[in-house]
Amino acid sequence: MTFTVFGTGAIGGYYGAKLAKAGNKVLFLVRSDYDWIKSWGLTVLSPTGDIHLENPPVYNSPEEVPPSDIILITLKTTGNRFLKEQLAPLVHENTAILVMQNGMGMEEEISNWFPHNPVLGGMCFICSRKKAPGIIEHQDKGSVTIGSLRSENRELAKEVTEIFNQAGVESRYVENLQEARWRKLLWNIPYNGLTVVLKGNTKDLMDNDSSRKIVENMMEEVLGGAAACGCPIEREAIDKMLHDTDSMTPYEPSMKLDYLAGRPMEIEYMYEKPLSMARKAGYEMKGAELLARQLRYLEDKN
Amino acid sequence: MTFTVFGTGAIGGYYGAKLAKAGNKVLFLVRSDYDWIKSWGLTVLSPTGDIHLENPPVYNSPEEVPPSDIILITLKTTGNRFLKEQLAPLVHENTAILVMQNGMGMEEEISNWFPHNPVLGGMCFICSRKKAPGIIEHQDKGSVTIGSLRSENRELAKEVTEIFNQAGVESRYVENLQEARWRKLLWNIPYNGLTVVLKGNTKDLMDNDSSRKIVENMMEEVLGGAAACGCPIEREAIDKMLHDTDSMTPYEPSMKLDYLAGRPMEIEYMYEKPLSMARKAGYEMKGAELLARQLRYLEDKN
Repeated sequence: MTFTVFGTGAIGGYYGAKLAKAGNKVLFLVRSDYDWIKSWGLTVLSPTGDIHLENPPVYNSPEEVPPSDIILITLKTTGNRFLKEQLAPLVHENTAILVMQNGMGMEEEISNWFPHNPVLGGMCFICSRKKAPGIIEHQDKGSVTIGSLRSENRELAKEVTEIFNQAGVESRYVENLQEARWRKLLWNIPYNGLTVVLKGNTKDLMDNDSSRKIVENMMEEVLGGAAACGCPIEREAIDKMLHDTDSMTPYEPSMKLDYLAGRPMEIEYMYEKPLSMARKAGYEMKGAELLARQLRYLEDKN
Repeated sequence: MTFTVFGTGAIGGYYGAKLAKAGNKVLFLVRSDYDWIKSWGLTVLSPTGDIHLENPPVYNSPEEVPPSDIILITLKTTGNRFLKEQLAPLVHENTAILVMQNGMGMEEEISNWFPHNPVLGGMCFICSRKKAPGIIEHQDKGSVTIGSLRSENRELAKEVTEIFNQAGVESRYVENLQEARWRKLLWNIPYNGLTVVLKGNTKDLMDNDSSRKIVENMMEEVLGGAAACGCPIEREAIDKMLHDTDSMTPYEPSMKLDYLAGRPMEIEYMYEKPLSMARKAGYEMKGAELLARQLRYLEDKN
């Protein structure tokens, strides 16, 4: 199975390098770091072992990329406005699309654009960031859960999960993609936005009683939204998530880095879309809505 | 009728000076600016005309202040932890106490301490700040609404209202003190906290669609809390408040100034007490609760 990494940053660079290192054929579509990676290769710095890809196959335009079996969508959702046009040249008959973005609703949108292609979703539990052009710093975690949007692509999702596992990426197939997306939001909704608004890292938020309570309440809201949308999640997931975050290296989530760098934030897919889904299902995620609006304000001012 | 100003800052300095200028006997209890005011007097700079009190009667300890008819409580509620002991030497038989603080529940507490004394509440709609020792800068507005905690003191509240009016302070007697306190919170709850968390002034918040929506939603919560506590307020109050704030000089509320100066913020009386009252009455002010916790976090880190 061959892969094209659509967006070679903190996520695409890491998982693409892992897959390539394990012997898979991986093509890299690169925007800003094209010249650098062409000359100097792609590097992943990781406590579990560095990876350096000398001369990986890189492309700077979708039209130039030869066909592959699976496209990994690893750009930020803030770039999704132009995704349909950019993706079109890469999507051939039978090309599968694995969406490794944060948020909710991306698979449905992509499936609307390419209704005959398999669409999978991958939830990445990873702390990583782009340290410099062509250099990805992997800080912590790294597992992926993978599911398919439609039931007829379940076997494909299992196959891809296996390939990731063989490449040393701890992966798990999930039957219910929507539920897995809500589980991912359980972390993303509180920590991404609050580290921006309150200007702390994950440890700052966990070590203070007031912010910890905000985090916990917002996780309860996510569970409320998930349940309203037909994806009930057990209450213990919150305690586990809090516990896991307690034991994590202090972390600045991607949204915080985007904000600090003056880039747009993933407010639409990480907040507004799931909130709107929950609202349509009869559940108001009021705290998350307030936080989303605070983020919009800060983005406008940034 | 004679007055003692308990706390000669942005509020006490302004209203005390107005009353004194009009010929009332006003004693000033001063903490940090005692030496300054003793030497140089008390100055109010105002677009409606400056006031300078040469040699006003100032005291720096409650024990030294001679009895007066009415004590104006004009210190911040962050100082209320020590208020009972400090107030005791000033409260004689028949001394009335007029609480000119922001928030909820202060009159009830003071009345518990001094159950035989009349307790009144004054809601100050004013933009003012202490510019320098002994110098108060009055920026905008200035009206006061006055009510009594217990019905037997209504005549007194009306008398005091009249004295304020005669001193050039636009004043209005209100029958229902609790409702008036909630009406004041309609402004205080959104603007005080949000200007801290979002680092803007009132105009910044009003000019941005997202923050304006937060403000409006939070005002709806305040109306919900008020109604649950038996003080229904008409929906039009929100539109009026938004409109009034639109036409206000861009303003940094007192909580924002406290935060910027590294002082404690009035989170307890302005947020936690009314929120707890609403909760006991069966209404959760979720957005305001989240905001209050964000403020607690920021105060802890400050």
